[in-house]
Amino acid sequence: MGITSINEVFELLKDDIKSVEDELLKNLDSEVQMVNEVASYVFKSGGKRLRPVFLILSSKLSGYEGNRSIVISGVVEYIHTATLLHDDVIDGAMYRRGKKAANRVFGNDITVLCGDFLYSRAFVNLVKDGDPEVQMILANAAKTMSEGEVFQLVKTANFDLTMEDYLKIIFSKTAILFSSCCEIGAVLSKSDKDKRENLREYGRLIGLAFQMSDDILDYLGDENKTGKKPGTDLKEGKMTLPLLLLRDLIDDKEKKNLKEIILKEDPSEDDLIYIIGLMKKHNIKEKAEQFVDSYIEKAKEKLQIFPNSTYKEALIYLSEYVIKRDR
Amino acid sequence: MGITSINEVFELLKDDIKSVEDELLKNLDSEVQMVNEVASYVFKSGGKRLRPVFLILSSKLSGYEGNRSIVISGVVEYIHTATLLHDDVIDGAMYRRGKKAANRVFGNDITVLCGDFLYSRAFVNLVKDGDPEVQMILANAAKTMSEGEVFQLVKTANFDLTMEDYLKIIFSKTAILFSSCCEIGAVLSKSDKDKRENLREYGRLIGLAFQMSDDILDYLGDENKTGKKPGTDLKEGKMTLPLLLLRDLIDDKEKKNLKEIILKEDPSEDDLIYIIGLMKKHNIKEKAEQFVDSYIEKAKEKLQIFPNSTYKEALIYLSEYVIKRDR
Repeated sequence: MGITSINEVFELLKDDIKSVEDELLKNLDSEVQMVNEVASYVFKSGGKRLRPVFLILSSKLSGYEGNRSIVISGVVEYIHTATLLHDDVIDGAMYRRGKKAANRVFGNDITVLCGDFLYSRAFVNLVKDGDPEVQMILANAAKTMSEGEVFQLVKTANFDLTMEDYLKIIFSKTAILFSSCCEIGAVLSKSDKDKRENLREYGRLIGLAFQMSDDILDYLGDENKTGKKPGTDLKEGKMTLPLLLLRDLIDDKEKKNLKEIILKEDPSEDDLIYIIGLMKKHNIKEKAEQFVDSYIEKAKEKLQIFPNSTYKEALIYLSEYVIKRDR
Repeated sequence: MGITSINEVFELLKDDIKSVEDELLKNLDSEVQMVNEVASYVFKSGGKRLRPVFLILSSKLSGYEGNRSIVISGVVEYIHTATLLHDDVIDGAMYRRGKKAANRVFGNDITVLCGDFLYSRAFVNLVKDGDPEVQMILANAAKTMSEGEVFQLVKTANFDLTMEDYLKIIFSKTAILFSSCCEIGAVLSKSDKDKRENLREYGRLIGLAFQMSDDILDYLGDENKTGKKPGTDLKEGKMTLPLLLLRDLIDDKEKKNLKEIILKEDPSEDDLIYIIGLMKKHNIKEKAEQFVDSYIEKAKEKLQIFPNSTYKEALIYLSEYVIKRDR
């Protein structure tokens, strides 16, 4: 039987998710109204709260029943949102979750500073929570995330990016925070070292697969299903999984053309169509999806040491969900 | 006799300052070389490490002899530098400490992210240090600083800014961190509540005076001594002490002229000369300096409850030093 839809997962965690939403808005108590305004603009834009879902499920998986998972989920969403705000400024983003990006509504300056506010607000709550293990996990995650973003910028439009460097980038920008959430679940439930390592590794693999799946959709997704216009990564000069796989399959002439496009300041619509054509010709979608699937299989194996429960079923379901091609 | 020059203060703390400099560079151990590069560019630009000086003196004032003051001084400088990097991006700064500002050398995107790196690096070290009191002081300071910067932006070119709002802005952007440094000195030396409150208040008053003094120099400083071109605050639409004092002294016609200049997108050199002329006519420099002096007097009173020592003498000397008109 098990869990067979995302709605069942959200139903299972209904009260917790509601508490996380309250927690997110509760702390927006700045004397400076503009800070609260920007933050609630962002939080009320929704988002699936995937990171809290993983954190809470991981904690329940080993029997945790307290409410620190709510507070820490709030901290994680603050850190995540701070990075989104700064990324949107850096990328000059137009939209985020179907709404105008905060930088376009409030300006770059206020958006950067509200990111800083969320970072420090997260820190205040972590200090209040008072658990050095959780603090260290998230302090390191925040550090790794900022380093990863710099690394990604340094590697912009680098046609020869290695798979290793690509994995390093997506680990830093996405997987570390998923990994941290799952590890914190183990810390909250005082799980043994093995279980903690397995959850951390589960989160890392899920996070990598999640980002890779996103990167595939950016070239090969169905705009009607994803709601996102393809080609953003190409415009930003990001070398991602489908491009890496393509690069290593094509002949010298195609390679030369591809490299020229990657090095362009502003690739055209025709450039994008050319690349997507090449990807279709070389079955990149299938190849990339197989690559991602192998991460999901490994992730699910990490859950084997846990006893069966609805929470475990939910995590198994989510492993597939995060790479759903039309999410 | 007492201490009569800044060199005597630096001589007194020579070993500590050297250790702080080492600490600042020691932690720049990112796998991502660009992060280390930006950070060392900033740290090697110098800076007087005033915040560490206040922190270390405050700790020694009550007999602290350990080396946590060095680690925490490093944290404070990281937080301070992160805010400088973000401010420089926001203000489109051209120079910082006589060198090209980081945003002009490395770009806005990398500069924002390296600010984030320094924030999170500070947090990692605070978690390692493991003192919830110190963590809470600095988490709150970081939060207040980001809120204050937003508040300042919201109040840009606001001709009717109240003195209360001005004090709130400079408390957030400058005084809170000085105040935190001095309070941490008391926490490290396990001083009683009275001493802790006095040191916190001493730092707050010093920080306010320091920023006010800076704001006076921005209109009325001698460029040959300060090395800074006057008029930056006017260009950025910041209403500061000398403008507030001037506004409340001039006649209606002058007020109308002044308001028009403040509301301009880009005030001219002539506008600046006009304002400086008005300030000279109305003795704003003397009035503003008297205003600042009253803060310094109050600050020094806060030190009275401490027994006499070289460290106390150094703090008394520094009280005057931070408002030195040619620093």
